[in-house]
Amino acid sequence: MKPQIDICLTPSLYPIYPANKDTIVIVADIFRATSSMCTALANGAESIIPVATTEEALMYKQKGYLIAAERNSLKCEFADFGNSPYEFEKEKVEGKTIVFTTTNGTKAIFAAQEYYELLIGSFLNIAALASYCLAKRKNILVLCAGDKNQINLEDTLFAGAFIEYLSDKYILKNDVAYMASDLWCIAKNNVFDYLKKGNHTVDLLKYGQEDDIIYCLQQNMFNFVPVFKFGCFKLLV
Amino acid sequence: MKPQIDICLTPSLYPIYPANKDTIVIVADIFRATSSMCTALANGAESIIPVATTEEALMYKQKGYLIAAERNSLKCEFADFGNSPYEFEKEKVEGKTIVFTTTNGTKAIFAAQEYYELLIGSFLNIAALASYCLAKRKNILVLCAGDKNQINLEDTLFAGAFIEYLSDKYILKNDVAYMASDLWCIAKNNVFDYLKKGNHTVDLLKYGQEDDIIYCLQQNMFNFVPVFKFGCFKLLV
Repeated sequence: MKPQIDICLTPSLYPIYPANKDTIVIVADIFRATSSMCTALANGAESIIPVATTEEALMYKQKGYLIAAERNSLKCEFADFGNSPYEFEKEKVEGKTIVFTTTNGTKAIFAAQEYYELLIGSFLNIAALASYCLAKRKNILVLCAGDKNQINLEDTLFAGAFIEYLSDKYILKNDVAYMASDLWCIAKNNVFDYLKKGNHTVDLLKYGQEDDIIYCLQQNMFNFVPVFKFGCFKLLV
Repeated sequence: MKPQIDICLTPSLYPIYPANKDTIVIVADIFRATSSMCTALANGAESIIPVATTEEALMYKQKGYLIAAERNSLKCEFADFGNSPYEFEKEKVEGKTIVFTTTNGTKAIFAAQEYYELLIGSFLNIAALASYCLAKRKNILVLCAGDKNQINLEDTLFAGAFIEYLSDKYILKNDVAYMASDLWCIAKNNVFDYLKKGNHTVDLLKYGQEDDIIYCLQQNMFNFVPVFKFGCFKLLV
């Protein structure tokens, strides 16, 4: 029997998805947490510790860690990095552990630890994620980080694109998977253009972060799968 | 300034939509609670009392009320009606008050009482609803009943169709409104065909209820707006 893929469009809906040790969870916060995490790892960061609050991030800072912290699309004052993937340059991150807290992304990660495995999803590594899941043949839950507990377009589109990569090897579990899939079909020929109406895209454009949007929508810059183990994300070796 | 329309795709997300006395709420449970309620009112039922549990419905039965009760797409044994719109015939309902409890629809109604006004939405009266809202110029929240706390396709499509009726007189408040609208554009040329992949449609077809599906997807059989007041729905006069 084919394994199933299910989509949760916002962490607010997480309680209605029962935890299952046989399911791989992929957390996606396309603009920009999970895209930036992948970029940091690609540029040589050793690991990423997600934390839910700025208070926790500050405690890590006092211990000498590098901190990435963003609230409402802007970098927190005390942080070394905001949430733009362009900030995570090789010379700054190579060999380092980065503590990461963002408005939506890290909340989603903390909601999702009772599963078989927890992976970081982004367009930047989408094919690698799909290959990994196809090899494991486990059920999948894509957990979209959304935007302040609301559903957003960009994470939904990621879920739809991911389903396309799985082709017919998976069963779509519920109506939400069909929705994400159909929306991806509308958007995929020009994803940036489609997203211009999205609340989050409007905000990012207002803050002059168009380059970030374009960057985060690129597919398959990285051929790796970041996995959560012992409190941090590392690349699978 | 134009008023706003917002969409809540399932009662599970209701807590993140703050109550607002200036907002009209439209509850939609297309398959089949709100479609059946509209049909009962069209066939002369005087009013409809929604209740959340079968226990409450049983108490009303003991007082002599007619009861419509459905769980998991099937009629409850003690009830006079299930949830099929075809059951609410004129000779059975004319002049009567009907107590209504269903798997999803009545829960949604009970979640939505702190607003300016609460209306019953269905494809059967969609244009009348839109005219009513356009005249009032209030903000609107479409509350989809969903399916056992999950998002479903048919209620989402109703929200998208309703947005189309409002044309450019309303601002779409968030990403969900764009999603519903775009999915409606895909589906509208053959809604039944589009919905065949939906979990709820699959269930209804399994129980031989194809006629109900076709019935509930008809637009504008009724030119009225059922409003919730003093614990029951009645037609606006």
